[in-house]
Amino acid sequence: MDQLAKAVGERVRYRRRACGLSQDNLALLSGIDRSYVGRIERGEVNITVEKLYRIAKVLVCEPATLLPKIQDIHS
Amino acid sequence: MDQLAKAVGERVRYRRRACGLSQDNLALLSGIDRSYVGRIERGEVNITVEKLYRIAKVLVCEPATLLPKIQDIHS
Repeated sequence: MDQLAKAVGERVRYRRRACGLSQDNLALLSGIDRSYVGRIERGEVNITVEKLYRIAKVLVCEPATLLPKIQDIHS
Repeated sequence: MDQLAKAVGERVRYRRRACGLSQDNLALLSGIDRSYVGRIERGEVNITVEKLYRIAKVLVCEPATLLPKIQDIHS
């Protein structure tokens, strides 16, 4: 589970940077608390599917692309 | 969000039946409470990504396949 949260967080961070957005930008645009965005990217929280969609919409990608394949996580 | 939870729930149910499993089977194998599995399939709860992975492992599919595309939900 820890590995999963980290893998999701890394994908969010990578995609956010590819979009040229700061954590503040992502927080503001998604309506997710700024400190919570930081915790998501560090893999400290287990986010809900609903938040995953809010993030994906801001990052203009499909939510599925932010999820690692099962074989790529070691949980 | 309601539409999202319903869309995810429908995909879980469809895949569970394709695997020939009952809700009880899925609950037991995933370690998720039986009544909660029912609520997931009815779209009554906003599940975490971690639960999505537990379900996908039991249903032998990638978690991403249980997520609808953004354009397919009306939230």
